[in-house]
Amino acid sequence: MKNISVVLNEPRFPENIGAAARSCRNMGISSLIVVNPELPDTEKMLKMATHEAADIIKNMKVYTSLEDALAPFNHVAGTTARTGRDRRPTHAPWDAAPELKCLAQNNRVALLFGSESKGLSNDHLKYCNSLISIPTADFASINLAQSVMIICYEIFKAHEPPGPVEPKLANIHETEAMYAHLSEMFMAIGLYNEANPDYWMNKIRRFLGRCNLKAADVRLVRGLCRHVLNTVKNLQNHNT
Amino acid sequence: MKNISVVLNEPRFPENIGAAARSCRNMGISSLIVVNPELPDTEKMLKMATHEAADIIKNMKVYTSLEDALAPFNHVAGTTARTGRDRRPTHAPWDAAPELKCLAQNNRVALLFGSESKGLSNDHLKYCNSLISIPTADFASINLAQSVMIICYEIFKAHEPPGPVEPKLANIHETEAMYAHLSEMFMAIGLYNEANPDYWMNKIRRFLGRCNLKAADVRLVRGLCRHVLNTVKNLQNHNT
Repeated sequence: MKNISVVLNEPRFPENIGAAARSCRNMGISSLIVVNPELPDTEKMLKMATHEAADIIKNMKVYTSLEDALAPFNHVAGTTARTGRDRRPTHAPWDAAPELKCLAQNNRVALLFGSESKGLSNDHLKYCNSLISIPTADFASINLAQSVMIICYEIFKAHEPPGPVEPKLANIHETEAMYAHLSEMFMAIGLYNEANPDYWMNKIRRFLGRCNLKAADVRLVRGLCRHVLNTVKNLQNHNT
Repeated sequence: MKNISVVLNEPRFPENIGAAARSCRNMGISSLIVVNPELPDTEKMLKMATHEAADIIKNMKVYTSLEDALAPFNHVAGTTARTGRDRRPTHAPWDAAPELKCLAQNNRVALLFGSESKGLSNDHLKYCNSLISIPTADFASINLAQSVMIICYEIFKAHEPPGPVEPKLANIHETEAMYAHLSEMFMAIGLYNEANPDYWMNKIRRFLGRCNLKAADVRLVRGLCRHVLNTVKNLQNHNT
């Protein structure tokens, strides 16, 4: 479990951060990261965390950018209640948990949760390699700390599936640089939809995001980008 | 799910009652019962329950006696973190959930939770037909509302096991009258351990508690008690 972190993006209530810390401690996860907490009131956090999880609050890392927070991770699993038509397929917690535990043998895994009011936007979801959705009755909006508890509980009780150990994957820092490179290449080859500028990037993110890319794969894709960009540039210079 | 109720015994914080109501609504349970809440602050409850679960708080039944609260139920499942040596075997939530869902087809099932600080005492546990324990890492003390969420979540996602439908069972009102009758009989036949007055009652409660007694079974046991008591009484009268 030492490779698994809970990441709360823009949490609103310090009580929820504290309750999430306690849930983490209950379920054997000791790394908590928050991005832009609305009210960083440590006293309120500690009250809900209880004495036993106080060190999780004290060692908690705070970031101002989600991308920076996620940079060292090799796999990001986002939690979402939304199931709009454009959304990617989501996994049930009990299906996702064994795979995440397997990945975490060799990789850093982030469990990403959105804010109480808005959840994760498309702009946050683009970092996610997989999505988890907690099944509910009609009322789908689960309290933030409750969502953290359910996901951590499922991961705690999951057994690693038998089978090959997942190799070390590229981290978000590396894959984001790759996506920036791909974006540059898309512009160069005219893969740009003015009415929907993210159309092609979303398509490629969804595809590559679930491919468990290793650092070598990232280098391969970036090599391809470089060659395409150079070719286009040379041809453009030649034509002028 | 209409036959399943969450029962909170002596909850301390109104926020936890509200959060429990929201969890119930998330997972399709609409009946919440509280016994002797320490601070019945409806405003704080409603804030945590959110608008969607406000009706659960408004329709919540409040009792001053746990036995009265449990009287109409046919099966009581208690949640406990303790695993002392005298304790009965406990079930994991995912093992208990399908059986409780099966029972609930024909019976009223209470999911009983103790207070934040003390959990369920032996005196509360005696009403329980089965016990559930949520597995944790080293720190076993789970926030009350989080415990409610995990149990409700497991019940929501459980499938009813294939097999015969459980028949209608005796309710707690009927079984408590039976235990009172048995207690009277135990005294009459000298089954009384002065050093440990509850010794025999605890033994018989643990045995009969897990037997899924029907009303006819209760009548049979009470008929036996009545005959023993009458026989003893007649012999005593005869001897004096």
